[in-house]
Amino acid sequence: MKNIENNNSSGLKVIPLGGLEQIGMNITAFEYEDSILVVDCGLSFPEDDMLGIDLVIPDITYLRNNADKVKGFVITHGHEDHIGALPYVLKELNVPVYATRLTMGLIDNKLKEHNLINEVRRKVVKFGQTITLGQFRVEFIKTNHSIVDAAALAIYSPAGIVVHTGDFKVDYTPVFGDAIDLQRFAELGKKGVLALMCDSTNAERPGFTASERSVGKTFDALFEEHKNTRIIIATFASNVDRVQQIINSAYKFGRKVVVEGRSMVNTIDVATSLGCLSIPENTLIDTEMLKNYPNEKTVIITTGSQGESMAALSRMAGDNHRKISIGQGDTVIFSSSPIPGNEKAVTNVINGLLEKGADVIFQDVHVSGHACQEEIKLIYTLLHPKYSIPVHGEYKHLTAQAKIAKELGMSKDNIFILKSGDVLELTQEKAEKTGTVPVGDILVDGLGVGDVGNIVLRDRQHLAEDGIIIVVLGLETATDQLVCGPDIVSRGFVYVRESDELMEQARYVVNEAVEGCLDRGISDWGKLKGAIKDSLSDYVWKKTKRRPMILPIIMEV
Amino acid sequence: MKNIENNNSSGLKVIPLGGLEQIGMNITAFEYEDSILVVDCGLSFPEDDMLGIDLVIPDITYLRNNADKVKGFVITHGHEDHIGALPYVLKELNVPVYATRLTMGLIDNKLKEHNLINEVRRKVVKFGQTITLGQFRVEFIKTNHSIVDAAALAIYSPAGIVVHTGDFKVDYTPVFGDAIDLQRFAELGKKGVLALMCDSTNAERPGFTASERSVGKTFDALFEEHKNTRIIIATFASNVDRVQQIINSAYKFGRKVVVEGRSMVNTIDVATSLGCLSIPENTLIDTEMLKNYPNEKTVIITTGSQGESMAALSRMAGDNHRKISIGQGDTVIFSSSPIPGNEKAVTNVINGLLEKGADVIFQDVHVSGHACQEEIKLIYTLLHPKYSIPVHGEYKHLTAQAKIAKELGMSKDNIFILKSGDVLELTQEKAEKTGTVPVGDILVDGLGVGDVGNIVLRDRQHLAEDGIIIVVLGLETATDQLVCGPDIVSRGFVYVRESDELMEQARYVVNEAVEGCLDRGISDWGKLKGAIKDSLSDYVWKKTKRRPMILPIIMEV
Repeated sequence: MKNIENNNSSGLKVIPLGGLEQIGMNITAFEYEDSILVVDCGLSFPEDDMLGIDLVIPDITYLRNNADKVKGFVITHGHEDHIGALPYVLKELNVPVYATRLTMGLIDNKLKEHNLINEVRRKVVKFGQTITLGQFRVEFIKTNHSIVDAAALAIYSPAGIVVHTGDFKVDYTPVFGDAIDLQRFAELGKKGVLALMCDSTNAERPGFTASERSVGKTFDALFEEHKNTRIIIATFASNVDRVQQIINSAYKFGRKVVVEGRSMVNTIDVATSLGCLSIPENTLIDTEMLKNYPNEKTVIITTGSQGESMAALSRMAGDNHRKISIGQGDTVIFSSSPIPGNEKAVTNVINGLLEKGADVIFQDVHVSGHACQEEIKLIYTLLHPKYSIPVHGEYKHLTAQAKIAKELGMSKDNIFILKSGDVLELTQEKAEKTGTVPVGDILVDGLGVGDVGNIVLRDRQHLAEDGIIIVVLGLETATDQLVCGPDIVSRGFVYVRESDELMEQARYVVNEAVEGCLDRGISDWGKLKGAIKDSLSDYVWKKTKRRPMILPIIMEV
Repeated sequence: MKNIENNNSSGLKVIPLGGLEQIGMNITAFEYEDSILVVDCGLSFPEDDMLGIDLVIPDITYLRNNADKVKGFVITHGHEDHIGALPYVLKELNVPVYATRLTMGLIDNKLKEHNLINEVRRKVVKFGQTITLGQFRVEFIKTNHSIVDAAALAIYSPAGIVVHTGDFKVDYTPVFGDAIDLQRFAELGKKGVLALMCDSTNAERPGFTASERSVGKTFDALFEEHKNTRIIIATFASNVDRVQQIINSAYKFGRKVVVEGRSMVNTIDVATSLGCLSIPENTLIDTEMLKNYPNEKTVIITTGSQGESMAALSRMAGDNHRKISIGQGDTVIFSSSPIPGNEKAVTNVINGLLEKGADVIFQDVHVSGHACQEEIKLIYTLLHPKYSIPVHGEYKHLTAQAKIAKELGMSKDNIFILKSGDVLELTQEKAEKTGTVPVGDILVDGLGVGDVGNIVLRDRQHLAEDGIIIVVLGLETATDQLVCGPDIVSRGFVYVRESDELMEQARYVVNEAVEGCLDRGISDWGKLKGAIKDSLSDYVWKKTKRRPMILPIIMEV
């Protein structure tokens, strides 16, 4: 945590509070004099070493300390890494939220879950519309992404215009709605753009990302090829266009569609009610109705494309689903690619499905939602920004975008690879890092927000690695006599029933240590506990080369 | 664990004891009447849910129960997934080991570490040589792989010839030694091959695997391009040919070479002493000597290409290395690709290196050591086996090879996708699964082999997820009076200093439960513990939505 607060001045401050070390937890503050606006408020999923953690949200100390300045949250699109922390943050900082239609629909769902729907002011914004927030005006610009209604933002400040692309790709033939509003990007470029904050996710990939519509053609071909089997398609719950295309193919081939997985059902409900998804009548059926149709006349759209063990696909594959079981005669299509870190989980599900006799297709039935190098070049060329601040990515993605900007002729002094917490101050004349603000990961575990920190995590890692040995003994206070114990209990260390001798010896070692101390008149509990820990951990290491947590508990009798 | 033992008969039994559900832990028994020979004896690395486990070795109950029949281990090559379990297994089953030169050199290293070098009979076998083991003869055939001296095996039994490819690729221009002995494969095919057991690792990949020599050309190009920086190259410790090519490029460009990482130093020592690696004089220098040369005249070859946190590369990147630190002006080359499951760890190291200012190259400086589809077709076509038993892979790899065999015209009835433990019995007339033998994972944790099982692992997972709450109390035996406690201690649950009220309430809840029981005359320890667990877990769930392990300990005072 960095603690230098930044001082007021007349430039525009760009302060990323998350999202620059990872793909996740996107949140950026823009500050001009008495006004702060915040773009996005996302969560991230726990790293492997964050044992037992459900999700991670950003530390908003800086916003809390400047609460009177904060005019509102402006949200680019409805993915978890852009909206997921909103319910937690709004509990502390109740300011209005601005977003496009589907984005707001998904935010509303979250606010309902957290009983906040009546507490928070929300305003749906149309593409092309501009809202005023203190000294800022913000214009929403149509883009394309793997979720409908994604927006780029033109942020007008007295210091100049900053364009934030949000997550985007250039799709000339999108499934729903218009192509990205390149004309508006060009107009802004003509006006003069102070800084561009552009999506870096695919900045390492050459070329262009294919159109979402190309996946529709693949579905048609696969439906044609697998006319005689049931088809199960796993994809991202939020990808409304993908679902639309599956429904289109199903309708074309005379199949009924079942949707499985709570998050997908929710998204489809919201998207349908907002007119972002059009489902022909009598196409969608309930799971219970599946049995009334021959297999080759049905399609199941499901969550679980990332190998999540609790998602519908894994449950169907593992016969843990109440209503559907996958096996021989099923064709399972992964319309997705594994998010980094999920590769092995996805492979495990694929192997399980193959073993059950299903046909599994897991390559080339997906396109990315993010811009590749040529699209990034297009945006830079249209906007011609003075400064570049690559966003949305790990360090390697940010540097890949920086490299592109340099190739396009930008001076490296005008490209800023920031860290979360950096304060970049911009005027028409110059841009420089002028300070840092506190940032960090707030861990959410069950109902607890922030009550699991480094100490608890370190203990969980220690427990996970080698388990725990607990030593309990009772001392009579008056006489410092050992009146019960030492007893030894372990969990996660060895299988105790087959380790009698080891545990008996351990008890002996501890007893010696305790008696040794008491005989020498040492009855200070801290010292006793230290002696127990030292003697027992030495013994255990010598015998097993393991380092379980050792926890002495002394009771006063 | 399956427990049906298989009965004797006059066919050849092929019994995989591991390696068919994963890439790892390869071990296969071949049994004919009174003779068993075992091909390979590998380990696997722990799955994500095997917390705290160091490595996994196969259950050899079947071999132990038939110890008098076992004539020896025949090893195809020196990778951990083929030799790593030998020291553990040989302690239980001391039979001779047969392998080629470098393979045996690496096995010797392991046996020395385990103080077994004087206990085990070992015989180095040359390519083309045939050894006799009971009713079997085994011929070693030259192949190519990502380690020198890899062999395929022709196993001659009274029932016919089985060819086991080991891990292989077809490299017409290998770096060291000859190309794979395709002529011998052809001769065997002419003779008539009963069954082929072929490497499935790359069976999903179309085309041909590129020659190892192509990486040498890439090194030359990269050395040319990065003439002005130090070069650090991370690769697999066992890939002697790769190291040879780095040394060749270094020599050509007048650079001195330092080797970092214990496993790599060991492999290079063995390979050099056996003449598998040739290093020009005055090329290799000690790490201490680095300071005597300008950066652009040095190359560091290092372990850690898989992002392993304790390997030399990670330590150098994290400034935890005693002698070398990487930063601005260094070019780091990953001559490897991430093994599935390691993707995120590798990316983390890359990001760390980039942040320190190093140039990082991590694509297209590697070729696989395994045969792709066209190479697999070549081997099938040369050998023309009656039966096919795909090996070395997860289920998806095995089925991919089965698909290839079918495309080549084999009947699907002659292709056997086995599970570890299956007994496949072969005669010239027929092949069928005739039973199963016990198989399983034996977990090694520190010095403990097999003392961590499902119960301990389940406890570790529980502890990792939500921590532990320990409740201690003392009862006076005679009166069933509570004389001390209940005291509550937790680890890995919440940060206790900031959860005073929660813990105090928890103590109150437990106290109520205990007093309630005692008042009702319930003093049975089992019932008391049950009451404590139930009341406390209800309370904790209600307050936190977490399920820590609850461990009541009652002491007799």
